Amino acid sequence: MIIPQSIQDAAKELSALPGIGPRTAQRLAFFLLKRPDIINDQLAESISKLQKTLSECTTCQNFTESNPCAICQDPSRDQAKLCIVESPIDAYNTERTSYQGRYFILHGALSPIDGITPAKLKIPELIDLITRTANKLQEGRNPDQETKLEIILATNPTMEGEATASYIQKHLENITNIQCTRLARGLPMGADLEHIDEVTLERAFQGREGF
Amino acid sequence: MIIPQSIQDAAKELSALPGIGPRTAQRLAFFLLKRPDIINDQLAESISKLQKTLSECTTCQNFTESNPCAICQDPSRDQAKLCIVESPIDAYNTERTSYQGRYFILHGALSPIDGITPAKLKIPELIDLITRTANKLQEGRNPDQETKLEIILATNPTMEGEATASYIQKHLENITNIQCTRLARGLPMGADLEHIDEVTLERAFQGREGF
Repeated sequence: MIIPQSIQDAAKELSALPGIGPRTAQRLAFFLLKRPDIINDQLAESISKLQKTLSECTTCQNFTESNPCAICQDPSRDQAKLCIVESPIDAYNTERTSYQGRYFILHGALSPIDGITPAKLKIPELIDLITRTANKLQEGRNPDQETKLEIILATNPTMEGEATASYIQKHLENITNIQCTRLARGLPMGADLEHIDEVTLERAFQGREGF
Repeated sequence: MIIPQSIQDAAKELSALPGIGPRTAQRLAFFLLKRPDIINDQLAESISKLQKTLSECTTCQNFTESNPCAICQDPSRDQAKLCIVESPIDAYNTERTSYQGRYFILHGALSPIDGITPAKLKIPELIDLITRTANKLQEGRNPDQETKLEIILATNPTMEGEATASYIQKHLENITNIQCTRLARGLPMGADLEHIDEVTLERAFQGREGF
């Protein structure tokens, strides 16, 4: 084998990334060799810096450079809405909607077979956060404001996501002053009925709305 | 926007790699956040080290950690064969065949419109190398050995690759004691005639061989 060790090393490290096989990794290594060294150093530094500058917000568990994170600190956010998502990317995508409440990031979905338990998803901390927030809202300093805490269970519409939402919802039954909701199920925009799966279509019929 | 700066930085650097769009880059950044910090440091170091440990062999132009490279230094390599390829990957792939000669890496193919000139591909250095090697072989210390230098033009079967091979071949016409060859054209293994392009099929007919 005549491939220099440092190319083999870089290709091996790159091939550990998701979606990058050994051939693509080798191509990437040669691409890196062809561009200015300083650009590679910038890439290397940004990778190495990631975990060193970020921690998890102790309130919402999202990645943040300051603790608590910008959203948890922001008083203009609707304190009466808490959106529970599986991953930070889900929260960032939700930020592109009109939603203005707060978040809780599970960093996964329940999957006992993979060792992903409620404790690992920090569900005890979530329930504690919900209890405290609901109580604070009930103390109600603004009597004209809606004081019920809405918990929006925005886990993925998959087996694991649904199981996680059910689990959380069940453990919230004894808390007063809250209301659980979940995202609407139905046809995605731009879909055509010919190719949509039957489960989605069934849900779209069940949830049909008036004009 | 609530995505922490260091995630945005890493995603931006990653999206500069070929085949990695902004969405994939963001997913990769979150993947990096989830795995042990030390693994990310290894990836970063291997990227940063690449150009620092490698230079181009002054004989064959391949990437190498020592100059001249292992192949150019190896006396057991057939000194009477020189394979000219466009990229280091082409040489590494050729190493998986039974070829046992030496290489010259052009690092590209002629494309005047993109500013890739003969000088940029080090073709003058190549011609100089060929002249010296052919002369050395002619001095012939082993009279029972084949003393003609075979130049295998193994550029890609594309417009640019063919033009590069023709250009080199023309500039070698005045050198004695060499023989230019190029890789066989024909059907790739596993092809079926129904789907093969007509140019390949034409070449396969022209180059048909006896059993």
